[in-house]
Amino acid sequence: MRTKKYPKDSLAESSEIVLPNDTNTYGNLMGGRLMYMMDVVGAIAAQRHCNRAVVTASVDNVSFKNSPALGDVITLEAKVTRAFNSSMEIYIKVVSEKPSKGTVTETNTAFFTFVAIDMAGNPITVPELIPETDQEKELYEGALRRRQLRLILAGRMSPDDATELKALFDKKLRKA
Amino acid sequence: MRTKKYPKDSLAESSEIVLPNDTNTYGNLMGGRLMYMMDVVGAIAAQRHCNRAVVTASVDNVSFKNSPALGDVITLEAKVTRAFNSSMEIYIKVVSEKPSKGTVTETNTAFFTFVAIDMAGNPITVPELIPETDQEKELYEGALRRRQLRLILAGRMSPDDATELKALFDKKLRKA
Amino acid sequence: MRTKKYPKDSLAESSEIVLPNDTNTYGNLMGGRLMYMMDVVGAIAAQRHCNRAVVTASVDNVSFKNSPALGDVITLEAKVTRAFNSSMEIYIKVVSEKPSKGTVTETNTAFFTFVAIDMAGNPITVPELIPETDQEKELYEGALRRRQLRLILAGRMSPDDATELKALFDKKLRKA
Amino acid sequence: MRTKKYPKDSLAESSEIVLPNDTNTYGNLMGGRLMYMMDVVGAIAAQRHCNRAVVTASVDNVSFKNSPALGDVITLEAKVTRAFNSSMEIYIKVVSEKPSKGTVTETNTAFFTFVAIDMAGNPITVPELIPETDQEKELYEGALRRRQLRLILAGRMSPDDATELKALFDKKLRKA
Amino acid sequence: MRTKKYPKDSLAESSEIVLPNDTNTYGNLMGGRLMYMMDVVGAIAAQRHCNRAVVTASVDNVSFKNSPALGDVITLEAKVTRAFNSSMEIYIKVVSEKPSKGTVTETNTAFFTFVAIDMAGNPITVPELIPETDQEKELYEGALRRRQLRLILAGRMSPDDATELKALFDKKLRKA
Amino acid sequence: MRTKKYPKDSLAESSEIVLPNDTNTYGNLMGGRLMYMMDVVGAIAAQRHCNRAVVTASVDNVSFKNSPALGDVITLEAKVTRAFNSSMEIYIKVVSEKPSKGTVTETNTAFFTFVAIDMAGNPITVPELIPETDQEKELYEGALRRRQLRLILAGRMSPDDATELKALFDKKLRKA
Repeated sequence: MRTKKYPKDSLAESSEIVLPNDTNTYGNLMGGRLMYMMDVVGAIAAQRHCNRAVVTASVDNVSFKNSPALGDVITLEAKVTRAFNSSMEIYIKVVSEKPSKGTVTETNTAFFTFVAIDMAGNPITVPELIPETDQEKELYEGALRRRQLRLILAGRMSPDDATELKALFDKKLRKA
Repeated sequence: MRTKKYPKDSLAESSEIVLPNDTNTYGNLMGGRLMYMMDVVGAIAAQRHCNRAVVTASVDNVSFKNSPALGDVITLEAKVTRAFNSSMEIYIKVVSEKPSKGTVTETNTAFFTFVAIDMAGNPITVPELIPETDQEKELYEGALRRRQLRLILAGRMSPDDATELKALFDKKLRKA
Repeated sequence: MRTKKYPKDSLAESSEIVLPNDTNTYGNLMGGRLMYMMDVVGAIAAQRHCNRAVVTASVDNVSFKNSPALGDVITLEAKVTRAFNSSMEIYIKVVSEKPSKGTVTETNTAFFTFVAIDMAGNPITVPELIPETDQEKELYEGALRRRQLRLILAGRMSPDDATELKALFDKKLRKA
Repeated sequence: MRTKKYPKDSLAESSEIVLPNDTNTYGNLMGGRLMYMMDVVGAIAAQRHCNRAVVTASVDNVSFKNSPALGDVITLEAKVTRAFNSSMEIYIKVVSEKPSKGTVTETNTAFFTFVAIDMAGNPITVPELIPETDQEKELYEGALRRRQLRLILAGRMSPDDATELKALFDKKLRKA
Repeated sequence: MRTKKYPKDSLAESSEIVLPNDTNTYGNLMGGRLMYMMDVVGAIAAQRHCNRAVVTASVDNVSFKNSPALGDVITLEAKVTRAFNSSMEIYIKVVSEKPSKGTVTETNTAFFTFVAIDMAGNPITVPELIPETDQEKELYEGALRRRQLRLILAGRMSPDDATELKALFDKKLRKA
Repeated sequence: MRTKKYPKDSLAESSEIVLPNDTNTYGNLMGGRLMYMMDVVGAIAAQRHCNRAVVTASVDNVSFKNSPALGDVITLEAKVTRAFNSSMEIYIKVVSEKPSKGTVTETNTAFFTFVAIDMAGNPITVPELIPETDQEKELYEGALRRRQLRLILAGRMSPDDATELKALFDKKLRKA
């Protein structure tokens, strides 16, 4: 039987100062540099869940806003939202602080998917995830819908079969 | 009147060797490192189109497959697919080569969106894009649909208004 | 009146994967690289306490043991132990994890001192620190003794005046 | 019989943005950093020609002019000019662009020589190069003269034997 | 019998320019970056003394003053002060220069301890150190006292047994 | 009157350990990485001679041999050989050591030329160089010949005017 783990068992956090080489001509954090940081902290959370080496399988749509500046502190928090067979969806939240003010601004959020692999590089079963808090349960539920969107966008699922996702476009099923 | 430009005017290409620090424990290129490279080459193409500083606004869903290994050569090609008011969608294609074999494998593709900004950091109008080849015209058409998906995912558009995107889930409108 | 802050207000945490360029010929994390990481996370905690730019003033004796290896995850936790006039002592604890085992090992601990400076680079008063837990109170008490040792080692205090520190060498005053 | 390849088969191109750490105190690209980029793109072209690992054997005289600034885009283009037994001469051309103007300036050009090696580190025969365009034919012809200069400068050829190079100093043989 | 070596046999020196990524928000060299540089040059001196791989065992109290600025030249000099069984104490002196003035300022000094290890990672005996100059003899004498302080701070020696160190706190034994 | 300086006044030295990211697929130091190190240490020597900011003007032909491996120690030594109006020729010698053997191998030598510039980026007169030792005098003499070769290769001098260099190709004038 698959072992079970809770989101708190694999929570990962990382804080970094935005250094000159992380910034563009206007002194703001480059989007690609932030995605690099997200990938590292997301991989740490995924590894903690499965105790295996992991590889990045996909990144969902990411929006950038409130771009952090040189010298700001970036804090990334990553937690597993749901475990599928050999893959894990990770929710990553990024906030930035102005050291001189102490104000904290949400920078962005993202969903990364990692796959656990064995020494030969083959996918391997990971523990189940049991959500506990309300936010964790909501993230757990949404994971199925996001997975269908990923499969459709990758051309590996027909929109007709995306029952979870279709609800999004079906007025009758949608709340409000 | 807005100036016009062609995709070939802003095409950007970059080749790099996968170095030790770009790799994970298994000696494969880390997903976050590849996204960093994509962001840089995408920004170069966007800047060439608008002759302005640009900031990354969003990255669409990216899948990773055929992970390049230490010593492989990564080649990224970025071209503008469509220009909106102040934003530009960039299509990025990544291939990797094994130097000892000369074989080229498609690693992945992605759509990044950049916004042109003036010296004060405000969005500024960019030239129109005129697609020429069949592939460019197809990318140009699809840009509207991808933009609607981005807006819905960012909670800035109701699925009902996403006429372009809805077709995807509407059996009657979909071809095949 | 000086404002007051608690240790939890400025707690900083950072997790990183040991990459190839962080290691020596034997594939172990270099001591200097770990001190660099400590300095960054310590500065983040100090900045959170005083909402000012800070500079590293000193590092107390650091011992290295259980050297982390390539691919291990390093987690650093930094908290303010005591605030003096313009300086803050920071306690940094480092643990490392083997991703494939999930075992966590204490790597080392250190005390860094940072000074808050204004825009002209002059030292500036920082908020007081109010310890809460037993561990925080113990760290707060010890801070005075460590400060005397620092001043003696820097040749800025005579051992005779180091009343706190002398107890260490005075059999009658020492417990047990 | 040795296989044959054309210059276009191994053409390599790379574009990069000049980042803060690439610049000197005056905000200009450091010469050594540019040579590093040249070496990487040159090695990619050489590897594409021979499908072997390569090592840098020599760099001819390089002049630096029109130094690119922070934020400029550097584009390097490398092509094989001639293949000798186990070595290949690579011509590298560097241009820089000011993103806000779109103007392109030639930064410099260089000739690097790489040697193909087998798994044991021994030199190994590479395919012949067949020049096609006029520029390629001119570069192919000049390669012999540059090779003689390299050998003389390395003390491995007597100036008397450098028949190709001597013409340079022989008024009667020189055109114009 | 153990071989003998002189401090001059293993002297190591390194000069570097302070680059943007080495500096904090105020354009000054970060303490942690300097400790990284010290660790590397210290390891080079230790390796030259023992012709073995070495690992950092400890760093004594380090004070930072006269913080070097962006573009300054940092020069580090490392020499072995004393060899114990398998460990070597290294004295590191750092000076910084303003290129435009040519003035040299002492930045700080530090004592690092490295341990020589064999291929299996076990400590291994190192050559003895024979001090020659007056400064070398003084550093050699003080090494015993610093070692006792390190052992006490690491909780591996009782203050009562630190006969060398106690003198520091004993009025009758102290000169002046 | 121009001030005068001796080669020893500006001698610069730097030792570094070859780290994973400095190496190619075969674990050997990349040529471009070594040129980067040469440029930095050469610039330090040039700045020490003129107390001005300097920019790299040219690099003479460099040959690579005895490629250093991962973990080896590279030591670079740079000295001014001759000062022209606003430019300085720097001789750079690189040796590498195997830490486990202590053997030192000459890796290569190179001549870099730097130009001193004022705050507006214009070339500015530098002090004269007075050679002292025999080796310094020989390097000083040869500097004129190397300068003529540079000017010819840059197309800025006719071979007929390169009186110093012509001797190289003139049997009657050449010794031996």
